[in-house]
Amino acid sequence: MASYPEILQKLIILFRKLPGVGRKTAERFAFQIISWQKSDITFFTDLLQNIGSALTFCKTCGAISDSTACPFCDERLRNSSLLCILASPKDIYTIENTRIFNGMYHVMKGLLSPLDNRGPEELNLPALEKRIETLPLKEVILAFDSTLEGDATALFLKDLLERKNILVTRLALGMPIGSSLDYLDEGTLSKALASRRP
Amino acid sequence: MASYPEILQKLIILFRKLPGVGRKTAERFAFQIISWQKSDITFFTDLLQNIGSALTFCKTCGAISDSTACPFCDERLRNSSLLCILASPKDIYTIENTRIFNGMYHVMKGLLSPLDNRGPEELNLPALEKRIETLPLKEVILAFDSTLEGDATALFLKDLLERKNILVTRLALGMPIGSSLDYLDEGTLSKALASRRP
Repeated sequence: MASYPEILQKLIILFRKLPGVGRKTAERFAFQIISWQKSDITFFTDLLQNIGSALTFCKTCGAISDSTACPFCDERLRNSSLLCILASPKDIYTIENTRIFNGMYHVMKGLLSPLDNRGPEELNLPALEKRIETLPLKEVILAFDSTLEGDATALFLKDLLERKNILVTRLALGMPIGSSLDYLDEGTLSKALASRRP
Repeated sequence: MASYPEILQKLIILFRKLPGVGRKTAERFAFQIISWQKSDITFFTDLLQNIGSALTFCKTCGAISDSTACPFCDERLRNSSLLCILASPKDIYTIENTRIFNGMYHVMKGLLSPLDNRGPEELNLPALEKRIETLPLKEVILAFDSTLEGDATALFLKDLLERKNILVTRLALGMPIGSSLDYLDEGTLSKALASRRP
């Protein structure tokens, strides 16, 4: 069995750590990198070397930022009675880009996942509880993926937050815009039917 | 519109240069990289920095190699009357792993592609012609993808090689092993029918 040169094999192992990248894709990536110009490779290594120092995680909300002041934590510019809890810093940008939310954010450290042995103690709840005490909250939006892990975490947080008399909401379930009934799964369709609007 | 920190945006642009990676995938890759451990990042940058010097392209066949002697060009170990022409160095490993080919290889510099303005002058034909003169060839196998570009290049090389009285063959077209008739396109099925064997 002919095997790739060692450096390529290492590169393939590394590429496989990226989400959704299997062996075949990682191999294609590695062979593509070989054909890159030297300037692109240098640009790539520079970025990787600087990424650790260029980015910081906001100690309050968990967002990433390249400045000392977190762009999402300024209470003078944003509605501090509304808090959106998310699973990853990336999701902040997705919510921001809808342009209809102007509240505060809080990024959890991952989601509950019994299969991966991640229980409540891994969610960094003290940080969230401190956050809830500091903000004059009226509503908390749980904006997690509609997955088993997202649902479990939402359920867990709902109990925790409702005990503090805060309105807890989740993203609506229903048909995605542009979708066709034909391709919709039954679960989504049931939700869309049950939540129908005049 | 909230935009990602600048360093992430640059990383996303770079990831999009990888084959089959669109904006959403590149964004996921970039956010994944942020969560990597420092040791993985260092390992990654080291590999990228060394890849240029660690790998060489064989001047004879175009294969990549991490040693000075090309592992695929030793005429004492391989059948020099058989030449397999391919589109990329990666394809050599794919052919090698079938274990039924023990001839020589020659990697073309890309394929003919009228759409991308790549004509015969970009294929580095002098190198191929020199190769054909040096080897005691009986057969040349054109092992290109079964695509428009692959077909065009094969047709072009067939004319060129047959004028030199060399037997030119291509990979057989037919059903992939494990495939079901239901999902086979008509073109492939026609070829499989026409080339049926007792």
